Amino acid sequence: MFEFRIQRTDGPARAGVLTLPHGEVQTPAFMPVGTHAVVRGLSANDVRQTGAQIILGNTYHLHLRPGEEVIERMGGLHRFTTWDRPMLTDSGGFQVFSLHGLRRIAEHGVEFQSHIDGTTRTLTPERTMEIQWRLGADIAMAFDHVVPGQSSPAAACEGMERTLRWLDRCKRAHSELAGKPVSGEAGRLEHTDQFPPGSTPYPPTGLPAYPQTLWPIIQGGIHDELRTRSLEGTIERGPWTGIAIGGLSVGEPKPVMHHILERLEPGLPRDIPRYLMGVGFPADLLEGIARGVDLFDCVAATRNGRHGTAWLPTGRVNVRGAALKGSAEPLDPACDCETCTTYPRGYLRHLFVVEDMLGLRLVSIHNIRFLVRLGEQARGHILNGSFDGWSREWLSRHYARGD
Amino acid sequence: MFEFRIQRTDGPARAGVLTLPHGEVQTPAFMPVGTHAVVRGLSANDVRQTGAQIILGNTYHLHLRPGEEVIERMGGLHRFTTWDRPMLTDSGGFQVFSLHGLRRIAEHGVEFQSHIDGTTRTLTPERTMEIQWRLGADIAMAFDHVVPGQSSPAAACEGMERTLRWLDRCKRAHSELAGKPVSGEAGRLEHTDQFPPGSTPYPPTGLPAYPQTLWPIIQGGIHDELRTRSLEGTIERGPWTGIAIGGLSVGEPKPVMHHILERLEPGLPRDIPRYLMGVGFPADLLEGIARGVDLFDCVAATRNGRHGTAWLPTGRVNVRGAALKGSAEPLDPACDCETCTTYPRGYLRHLFVVEDMLGLRLVSIHNIRFLVRLGEQARGHILNGSFDGWSREWLSRHYARGD
Repeated sequence: MFEFRIQRTDGPARAGVLTLPHGEVQTPAFMPVGTHAVVRGLSANDVRQTGAQIILGNTYHLHLRPGEEVIERMGGLHRFTTWDRPMLTDSGGFQVFSLHGLRRIAEHGVEFQSHIDGTTRTLTPERTMEIQWRLGADIAMAFDHVVPGQSSPAAACEGMERTLRWLDRCKRAHSELAGKPVSGEAGRLEHTDQFPPGSTPYPPTGLPAYPQTLWPIIQGGIHDELRTRSLEGTIERGPWTGIAIGGLSVGEPKPVMHHILERLEPGLPRDIPRYLMGVGFPADLLEGIARGVDLFDCVAATRNGRHGTAWLPTGRVNVRGAALKGSAEPLDPACDCETCTTYPRGYLRHLFVVEDMLGLRLVSIHNIRFLVRLGEQARGHILNGSFDGWSREWLSRHYARGD
Repeated sequence: MFEFRIQRTDGPARAGVLTLPHGEVQTPAFMPVGTHAVVRGLSANDVRQTGAQIILGNTYHLHLRPGEEVIERMGGLHRFTTWDRPMLTDSGGFQVFSLHGLRRIAEHGVEFQSHIDGTTRTLTPERTMEIQWRLGADIAMAFDHVVPGQSSPAAACEGMERTLRWLDRCKRAHSELAGKPVSGEAGRLEHTDQFPPGSTPYPPTGLPAYPQTLWPIIQGGIHDELRTRSLEGTIERGPWTGIAIGGLSVGEPKPVMHHILERLEPGLPRDIPRYLMGVGFPADLLEGIARGVDLFDCVAATRNGRHGTAWLPTGRVNVRGAALKGSAEPLDPACDCETCTTYPRGYLRHLFVVEDMLGLRLVSIHNIRFLVRLGEQARGHILNGSFDGWSREWLSRHYARGD
């Protein structure tokens, strides 16, 4: 379980298979985001039909609504959503550090106000481990201190070092939840007032007995030496079944992100998947894969879909545009998604004009399929050794359009 | 084509099969409403899975957006929507007579302001025939003058008599569109300025060569003698392949509607389907079927679904209600719809709480399936001669709940 098998590499690009409790993930792969335990507007079946192999849930949002205890009582995220393939939950770190309004950061954790009801809540490494354990995804993420993309070295260093200290606590807490013995540095967990030992039955009795793994997150802003230190500190605390790169695509220029990925790549463990968090516009996938990334997630596919922007091999299209009026052609004649194989684009335009939610759904389905297929195509090219040429050509066409 | 075969009757209730260009309709049957060429929020496949055999489109709305010329150019409503089963379009009469703001009624037709862009438009019998022809549904409806449910005999009489005069013009115009010879009263159509002869290529060349039939509408408000006169005048202008009863469920008490149906029933032609327009809450179906009605349409199923009200055999349920929180049970364990066979109701509640549109869709699917199945059940009981007892028991339970 949690095994990752590399099938072939092509430069830093890798094609592999990740085995998780709820199935296999062929990498590289895009993971659609189901913030509220639903990929916005889509049924589990809609998402399955896009070919997506794994989806995300957001711990922050699910903790607030409906609450992890509700999902646990219903048998965990898989039964709650009817999504029967692999799932990953983030730690809530990105959300609480992005929150406006009251937010207090301390070594202990982060105190924040719920954006739903204004109540004060606290997330700590232990708490997010407990929440994610109860949600029951295949992969839980460590609690990280995310800093803005243009942060000073001092601020980035503070977040990075704290992320490492929190990683110890996450590892210890997650091992306890899983009933595993804990040794070394991570063993010295001090329980806090908020989470007295024994306050929660571990593991919860209602959950199906699926194992869960914990992945750490590399931080360090845009500073090479901090990223290197974060990587080293993370590896020291391993072994891990996967490793994530966080704190990118948070305001820094794209070339900076690419540079960071290039600096990190040689030091990343070969034998586990690498997950670039929150990154997933079409070009980002190919740029990331070329730099050794295996997994991506991003809300752009569904957000663009809801706003009527469809991704095509020839560039973006505004589905509301007058050019589509009366057109009996598919959105993309070459696309194999449900939307393109079923509906004329003139009908999609009409749905947006009359503001029927079916339009949002159909374009979201198309965009997700576009990214999932891009992962499949990249994988195919890695497997036959043609990734570099193919992705360069794809990207040069893309950048030439100014997309 | 347009043949209606009665299989069995049980008192006034009838089980039959209506043959239309795009397929058969087993009656009695509920027809979901696709106002903007979409059953609100649902894909054609979603609707097919409810077992619906025929859906409606609204001529008024489709004339405004995207315009009948757009739908015609794309091959008609069936290709536009990808709904490949029978369709019916209303005439726009109900909508223009329900419009607030500027509206001028004359013998010629109705001048009204578009609720979309404020432009002044005119609907006449000839114009709605042309629009519906271009939309290309299996069944077009005659242009009727609808009066409010509590109208005086004089107002109701005016609307009823005008509806008959307009029926002559509709029949003539529809026959011209279909390239059929027209004889008798309806032959004396005087073309108006708005629609000079030859201004439109009839039949439009782009449409698939599916025949379309025209159904008349009985009006007369809540006044027995006016309804009888409307029925007689309508039959005189026949023969028809179907007949509709309009102007009910527009503000009058339910017992009044039932009384009108009972008065009309003996005089209605036996051998064609009867369609009760705009009526279709669950109890309405059984009350109507018991009075000889074969077809129903209503937006209540989808409107209630969007507002989170689900129809169950045990009464209405507010899907947002706290009672559903954390429940792993289906909404209705006995229901065979996609929603009930797939999702726990605690998840449906969550979708409404987080305002994800998937919730609206799933409860709409359930409600439509509820009405479609109610038609199927009624049909089964008519076929085995048990309709009267079954429907009385169903209705007494329903009314005892105060639903």
